[in-house]
Amino acid sequence: MRTLKLTLAYDGTDYAGWQVQPGCRTVQGTLEAAIHRVTGKQVRTLASGRTDAGVHALGQVVSLRTESRLPAAVFRRALSAVLPEDVVALEAVEVPEAFHPIRDARSKRYRYLIHDGPDREVFFRRYCWHYPHGRLDAEAMDRAAAALQGTHDFSSFETSGAGRKSSVRTVRDLWVRRGGGPWDRAGGEDWITLEVEADGFLYNMVRAIVGTLVEVGRGAQPPSWPGETLEAADRRAAGPNSPPQGLFLVWVDYGTGE
Amino acid sequence: MRTLKLTLAYDGTDYAGWQVQPGCRTVQGTLEAAIHRVTGKQVRTLASGRTDAGVHALGQVVSLRTESRLPAAVFRRALSAVLPEDVVALEAVEVPEAFHPIRDARSKRYRYLIHDGPDREVFFRRYCWHYPHGRLDAEAMDRAAAALQGTHDFSSFETSGAGRKSSVRTVRDLWVRRGGGPWDRAGGEDWITLEVEADGFLYNMVRAIVGTLVEVGRGAQPPSWPGETLEAADRRAAGPNSPPQGLFLVWVDYGTGE
Repeated sequence: MRTLKLTLAYDGTDYAGWQVQPGCRTVQGTLEAAIHRVTGKQVRTLASGRTDAGVHALGQVVSLRTESRLPAAVFRRALSAVLPEDVVALEAVEVPEAFHPIRDARSKRYRYLIHDGPDREVFFRRYCWHYPHGRLDAEAMDRAAAALQGTHDFSSFETSGAGRKSSVRTVRDLWVRRGGGPWDRAGGEDWITLEVEADGFLYNMVRAIVGTLVEVGRGAQPPSWPGETLEAADRRAAGPNSPPQGLFLVWVDYGTGE
Repeated sequence: MRTLKLTLAYDGTDYAGWQVQPGCRTVQGTLEAAIHRVTGKQVRTLASGRTDAGVHALGQVVSLRTESRLPAAVFRRALSAVLPEDVVALEAVEVPEAFHPIRDARSKRYRYLIHDGPDREVFFRRYCWHYPHGRLDAEAMDRAAAALQGTHDFSSFETSGAGRKSSVRTVRDLWVRRGGGPWDRAGGEDWITLEVEADGFLYNMVRAIVGTLVEVGRGAQPPSWPGETLEAADRRAAGPNSPPQGLFLVWVDYGTGE
């Protein structure tokens, strides 16, 4: 038996999230069916974290144990060939059996895209939150975000407390800037990009941070407010969750020098 | 009765092209149904040109005649509100009754996106031609493209000769360059962008030009070949059509100083 570490990109639009659920098209179920086609065996995969329905990944990390003797690079190409067009295996490497994609993760980075032009962006409608109610103040959002950096109890930014020992996380990087849209013709001026890196994330934490910062961006709350909501340690203190389709898991770092 | 000039963007993926066809989801049929919902009247629309199944538009121009007294800006917003999420009305202006979106067009510009990285781009799979067989030589393609600029008989780049008086067209601009991809993370190095502007295009002309230039890009033909195929005035002389999903109608110019 060998342990493989896979890096996947997927368009989450047409999936009911990562985790296998009966009767639903999930990324995990789709991946495991593809592995079955390549190896002839049923395997269980483990991801660095579950992504919700509609959430995307540029670099999700998944582990699996297999008896397959295919070289990792061949395994990867075979897998991509049988995966549907909205999932791709970007990398496969053999790792020690002890590798655990959740416990061993040192850092994760997410990106969130907001489009605040008045007209919907037909080509990116699946990959952003369209906010058509006027320009958001990205600078104010970025100032507000500064207070969320560092080590805090993020209970106010967590949808549910199940399955974790502590709600303290360390946000290593968090910024908001106007620009970064996908079409050079658009000049990027209708797009806001947020990126956040932390040692771990509570359930729905990024979407709660985005929803809270948008309250500042639209002028409903002052830039000091997101930092203040931390102290309440109560989900009701912060803003609503932003919708899933703007969210991308960018990468997961295991401190292996990649 | 007033004549309105609409500018539309659409994702052509889920359409059987522009033109109304019984039993098919078409952009024209979808637009006319939306206009019916806004005005209560059945109207016929006329586009600057038909786009094929899977071809996209960033700025298709369409005319219609209506008795509606809604101000053009209000009409536009009402239309976008009832259109499906893969079509948007970007502009509506009242124009003289004599306006004809085909005959009055002075110039049109198309863009074509090729992704030549080894792995498919899951987020842009509907909006590019994925060429996984190795790097194309974009510089050689650009040199080859120079011979197609100017006024020529483009019969070698026309799928069918029906419905036009002459196969002579003037290509005002044509270039190929590496870069221009949608994700800044990707650095653009896996993307090739082609743009072409002409006073008019024959049927499938852009896709034939792209398919021919790719023969140069992959080293199967020398950069002198595309220009030489013009002289044959025979479709079999040039390369195959590239697939539709990489093609975008960027804009149509009516010389009205926009």
